[in-house]
Amino acid sequence: MFRPVYLDHNATTPIDPAVLAAMLPWLESQHGNASSRHEYGRQARQAIDEARQRVAAAVNAHPTEVVFTSGGSEANNLFVKGAAGCLKAGVIAVSAVEHPCILKPALQLQAQGWRVRTLAVDANARIDTADFAEALQLKPRLLSVMAANNETGVLQDIERLAEAAKGSGWFHTDAVQMLGKQVLDFRALNAAGLHAMTLSAHKACGPKGAAALILDKRVEIQPQIAGGGHERGLRSGTENVAALVGFGVAAELAAQRVAELPARLRAMQKALEAGLLGLGARIFAQGADRLPNTTYFAFPGIDGETLVGKLDREGFAVASGAACSSANPEPSHVLRAMGVEPESARGAVRVSLGAGNTEADIEQFINALQATVGRLQGLTALAV
Amino acid sequence: MFRPVYLDHNATTPIDPAVLAAMLPWLESQHGNASSRHEYGRQARQAIDEARQRVAAAVNAHPTEVVFTSGGSEANNLFVKGAAGCLKAGVIAVSAVEHPCILKPALQLQAQGWRVRTLAVDANARIDTADFAEALQLKPRLLSVMAANNETGVLQDIERLAEAAKGSGWFHTDAVQMLGKQVLDFRALNAAGLHAMTLSAHKACGPKGAAALILDKRVEIQPQIAGGGHERGLRSGTENVAALVGFGVAAELAAQRVAELPARLRAMQKALEAGLLGLGARIFAQGADRLPNTTYFAFPGIDGETLVGKLDREGFAVASGAACSSANPEPSHVLRAMGVEPESARGAVRVSLGAGNTEADIEQFINALQATVGRLQGLTALAV
Repeated sequence: MFRPVYLDHNATTPIDPAVLAAMLPWLESQHGNASSRHEYGRQARQAIDEARQRVAAAVNAHPTEVVFTSGGSEANNLFVKGAAGCLKAGVIAVSAVEHPCILKPALQLQAQGWRVRTLAVDANARIDTADFAEALQLKPRLLSVMAANNETGVLQDIERLAEAAKGSGWFHTDAVQMLGKQVLDFRALNAAGLHAMTLSAHKACGPKGAAALILDKRVEIQPQIAGGGHERGLRSGTENVAALVGFGVAAELAAQRVAELPARLRAMQKALEAGLLGLGARIFAQGADRLPNTTYFAFPGIDGETLVGKLDREGFAVASGAACSSANPEPSHVLRAMGVEPESARGAVRVSLGAGNTEADIEQFINALQATVGRLQGLTALAV
Repeated sequence: MFRPVYLDHNATTPIDPAVLAAMLPWLESQHGNASSRHEYGRQARQAIDEARQRVAAAVNAHPTEVVFTSGGSEANNLFVKGAAGCLKAGVIAVSAVEHPCILKPALQLQAQGWRVRTLAVDANARIDTADFAEALQLKPRLLSVMAANNETGVLQDIERLAEAAKGSGWFHTDAVQMLGKQVLDFRALNAAGLHAMTLSAHKACGPKGAAALILDKRVEIQPQIAGGGHERGLRSGTENVAALVGFGVAAELAAQRVAELPARLRAMQKALEAGLLGLGARIFAQGADRLPNTTYFAFPGIDGETLVGKLDREGFAVASGAACSSANPEPSHVLRAMGVEPESARGAVRVSLGAGNTEADIEQFINALQATVGRLQGLTALAV
């Protein structure tokens, strides 16, 4: 079977074989409902308890701070709407480069009297410090700033921002792109002033269908799925045992590998970016601290969608902006917030590397890109 | 390994081997994000499209009427809060025997000015027709009545109720206990006046983590998880491809087996209930139309929790009421609504059969029960 080289790990990752091995018994024979009070149920409950401990340990949190959800989008919605539901309406401050699963629930709050204050970013996609200070004057009751952006890979200094925001409301970070690529220490961030953090299994070699909101217990949250009272009443619904078990193992592996994987990714990223610049590409947020696996670029005059399609046929799976959902012909809101002109933004292509990639993948990719870009630029020249 | 005889299929079911076989490629090698526009993504998208067609076909709905969620609780919350979010506040009518994942979101609506009208049931747990007619006078904007109750197994005549409710608001049924045990025909129910129906994979030999709200497209719904715009904007979040694929196959198998499985379950149920009555048990809602797999009973003077614990040690996995969540020492709200006195309700034990059970399981269970009940009644006699 033809299998393109996978260079789209920020969209989703393959499940690590050790993760799948841990999941299989919970799909094959251990089918209990964790709420059942018999042997099958107790085994499922114990497996979930262990998964919770593993996830907590991976990010230096306490197991009781872990609220499991079905995905990162659900966890982000739970923070925004759940925390807002326990507060008087006020200001919610969110960065301009957040994922839609933060931006849209924040906008939904307007119907309940909330005001959304968008936090500006500079040309390198970093939070604008002066604008942030100005926003804090409004005493936001809720704040959310992404730890690492899914499109650009740009890292925010969450610890410093949280410290600056002390005395404001509950501060959340969407850290789904961080797990396994950077050390995550919830205890330290919490001491600095962060109150909540979203993680997702499938972004870190775990299965789809499992994620967590790590939550300082002082934060009151209204459940968004009410019912049987699972997850200490914060998220009802029969637990997806196999997926949570997989999440636990994936988080543990991510924490172990963070000692060596980033350096390996960084070396490949360096080779990739040297090749891209050699071919005349522009790399977005090139000067910013970025994830070691993410490179977002464009070639002058070449449409990103078209390039992704051509590369797909050449055997390389890359993204043209965020893989969110269905056809969205708008240029990336992240690039817009960075002040990138629309012509350039329409050319955006993202490569996001993973543990399975090799230097050879990069070399082949650059070769394929050279030929493809050459052909497309030739066509553009002819069309003029 | 010691494996008790599993008699708790209303809590959750084992995954059918054919379902797991269909899921495995999506856990092992086909890891794409269905929103990605490359080969991995397209394959995932196609798998989800096929799963949607299978689920729709299994209940005679149209694929575009299927909104996938992570579970039945989420689907029920999505109906109640999602539909309410698009309506002016009014009356929501829900039966007294609904699962908490209908009752609690309905109560949450009170904060937005809604009034909850509880629909009474008779001693056999069937909707009280006179009370239902009275409730309709209030012109409820939303209604929800469970098709088959998880505790008692009692079936409601949803078609007749929907017809009676024509001209009222959107009518929903939680049908998670029906799939595979009774024919489900959404088209026919929709013609009668039903607008929405909840299904769940793990109640029908599919995986945990996949469910659906089957939804008449005239019903406007506000998404409860907002973000990337998945599921036509009604439920954002990266799709759990493997779980949805499993749901599709499980729904297809359920629809095929509904021709023969119920008769086999009914025969076992008959033997079980004859044995129970012979031992002096009371069977709740004995006179009502019930699922062919569900028997809810109590022995005078014997606590249900205690009996479940003893049976667990004897090698039989049964439930003491609904397996929702954590320790809930309250007697079942379902039995309370039926007018069962608390002493009797505290004795409630549920046996729910599945495709894997045999006549021999029933015989062994009745033998174990006879010995256990005898011992417990002896103890009770001594204590008096």
